[in-house]
Amino acid sequence: MEFRKPIPLQSAIKLMMEHAPLMETEEISLSESYLRILAEPVVAAHNIPPFDRAPYDGFAIRSQDSQGASEQQRIGFQVVDHIGAGSVSTKMLGQGEAVRIMTGAAMPKHADSVVMLEQAKLSDSGDCFTIRKSFQPLENVSLAGEDAAVGDVLLEGGELIHPGSIALLATLGYAKVKVARKPVVGILATGSELLDIDEKLVDGKIRNSNGPMLQGQLARMGIPFRSYGKLMDRFDACYELVKQAITETDCLITTGGVSVGDFDFLPAIYEKLGAKVLFNKVAMRPGSVTTLAVLDGKLLFGLSGNPSACYTGFELFTRPALLRMMGSNKPYLRYTQAELAEDYKKANPFTRFIRASLSFTEGRAVITSAGFNKSNAVSSLAQTNALIVLPGGSRSFAKGDIVDVLMLGTEEGDREWKI
Amino acid sequence: MEFRKPIPLQSAIKLMMEHAPLMETEEISLSESYLRILAEPVVAAHNIPPFDRAPYDGFAIRSQDSQGASEQQRIGFQVVDHIGAGSVSTKMLGQGEAVRIMTGAAMPKHADSVVMLEQAKLSDSGDCFTIRKSFQPLENVSLAGEDAAVGDVLLEGGELIHPGSIALLATLGYAKVKVARKPVVGILATGSELLDIDEKLVDGKIRNSNGPMLQGQLARMGIPFRSYGKLMDRFDACYELVKQAITETDCLITTGGVSVGDFDFLPAIYEKLGAKVLFNKVAMRPGSVTTLAVLDGKLLFGLSGNPSACYTGFELFTRPALLRMMGSNKPYLRYTQAELAEDYKKANPFTRFIRASLSFTEGRAVITSAGFNKSNAVSSLAQTNALIVLPGGSRSFAKGDIVDVLMLGTEEGDREWKI
Repeated sequence: MEFRKPIPLQSAIKLMMEHAPLMETEEISLSESYLRILAEPVVAAHNIPPFDRAPYDGFAIRSQDSQGASEQQRIGFQVVDHIGAGSVSTKMLGQGEAVRIMTGAAMPKHADSVVMLEQAKLSDSGDCFTIRKSFQPLENVSLAGEDAAVGDVLLEGGELIHPGSIALLATLGYAKVKVARKPVVGILATGSELLDIDEKLVDGKIRNSNGPMLQGQLARMGIPFRSYGKLMDRFDACYELVKQAITETDCLITTGGVSVGDFDFLPAIYEKLGAKVLFNKVAMRPGSVTTLAVLDGKLLFGLSGNPSACYTGFELFTRPALLRMMGSNKPYLRYTQAELAEDYKKANPFTRFIRASLSFTEGRAVITSAGFNKSNAVSSLAQTNALIVLPGGSRSFAKGDIVDVLMLGTEEGDREWKI
Repeated sequence: MEFRKPIPLQSAIKLMMEHAPLMETEEISLSESYLRILAEPVVAAHNIPPFDRAPYDGFAIRSQDSQGASEQQRIGFQVVDHIGAGSVSTKMLGQGEAVRIMTGAAMPKHADSVVMLEQAKLSDSGDCFTIRKSFQPLENVSLAGEDAAVGDVLLEGGELIHPGSIALLATLGYAKVKVARKPVVGILATGSELLDIDEKLVDGKIRNSNGPMLQGQLARMGIPFRSYGKLMDRFDACYELVKQAITETDCLITTGGVSVGDFDFLPAIYEKLGAKVLFNKVAMRPGSVTTLAVLDGKLLFGLSGNPSACYTGFELFTRPALLRMMGSNKPYLRYTQAELAEDYKKANPFTRFIRASLSFTEGRAVITSAGFNKSNAVSSLAQTNALIVLPGGSRSFAKGDIVDVLMLGTEEGDREWKI
């Protein structure tokens, strides 16, 4: 039997990130930019807002004209114009003159404060009003540049684009935005035991769940896939398809065939292809056989055929690598800590990842195992929204212990690998 | 000036959810099911795994034949067959016979335990091996149904489909899955101040950021939109387009025009359309003018034209309503609590939502305001991944205080409205 030396998880991650090839950039329409990674910083080309404006419906006045107003001595104004948002008053305000102005409209020249509608007592005609208090210069005025000033760096390159950043980019006139091209990821499931989803079960066989699952994990990231279906454990057919897939994709994921069993052909395929194997054993459970090879600068992920190990392998390895390929500054799963909801009795010779369900109750983050917990489990994946991380060398954990947690299915990631 | 009576936020949410129309269901391909909502429970049609199998590479034996084995008295076995995953051995094991078996392969008849490769001492030819310990019945066997048993309800109707549930559905043979149809959501931005993204700024005007932002918020949910662009604040044109949009969509979002300004025409448009206004003022900041009307059973969201208020209005109202329309059992934003990273001095006559950035440091959830904090702010939205919720009637908050938080951009939501 082949002997493989396990590499510490942290070293495996580091090695992988160093070998992740950076994608070229492209300009895309802002309307298609959700989940893309900004290729350059966003600098305000103009003030936000671009002009002084009224934040309320009311009357724009010269504050100096309001001085001395009181309940006993109301001061009156004459309404000389009436504008809504988008309009600009051409009137030059004289003493005691006002412009009726709506939220978002530009402040008229010489006006420097806004009397809110509810602060004014209107005449029946609406042509005049009185006030009972004096206004400060700039009172109730939304100033040009108060939100952001021209030249401000508002987003750094490497940020993921989400709805809030889209609002900012639209405000600044980014009809198109420069982002990293999305990698196309190939998926090939190997295993003579695999049936297609629509096939009837026959003795000794199970349906291919890793392929569809990985497609879902890529869909979660907004990354396109190219499916190479499934193959029996036969060296020649697998070799040819892997060879072809590498030319057609930016990154290839295979599942199964990476262990040291009699029909695990991926190691030999990597060798014949001339791929450089970065690691083929990681000090972790499940997914210790997770393998990473590089060929022509492209990453080849050899994930376990066991569904839970495959799922975990994608989230821990493939996901950050793909984000790094797109230049993301937050490629790692979101880290937090939570309170264990139950005892965990097993010892952990290596770092262990347990599929789990994270919930928030009365301000406490509580985490519970998602169910049947073996590397070949699949039902528990349906309840999984986080991974419990138990450090290698640890013994058992008790209910209430605080443990490390990696969150799944969150838009935003972490800058640093924290475990 | 029109007087509107604010409705408590919780009542507004309740009223909205009661009026959300349930979408019809459809069958879609599993490969397109990410973020869809299951229309029916998933019941295991067969055991998972469907047969007893080997969880390791090794040798299947009859455990009775191993009794009495020790270091001093090794017991020998003859290898009579050799199978990988997907194969079924037709050999009937006799005493002292074994089948070389790989991970995932079905247990041969009469075999009831597996000797792991590293537990066996092989002959040079590989035809025989000896063991030094006895094996229990079912030792190292992965049992049919141990992951899930036929008839188990593995997912309830109303669950969001994510990569883990896709793995389960694939395992059970769901090539197609019954889900709620996705609503088509119309988006119309109103405001005479609005320019298109690619237009040059002119005096008194700003670019339409709400339209693209809402498209992004819908993209985050995987929900398609139909854009009606932007319109000036003119009654007739707005009325006609709103009337048309309602016939072409399942739900309509307009932005702007819902306040009591001189050019806010949505209230009059709802009236002329004969729409029933459920509420037009909510006891919250920002977005107190958030309006919800119903026409022909469809929801019409009148969101504020202020970007921050619009963003918040979508997440608090439109998002859960759309999820409820799809039958989701977890339609609400994910609730947690976090430690305020800074003082907050303003009083809160109404429930206040502050765009914020949630982070996790040394096991503590810490939340900090995302920046410039006015309802018309846009730059802070780019830093927002959560909302701080300060209850109505509260005074100031100090750094370190624990506050309510709603998380944004998480795949999974909450069953209950908790604030």
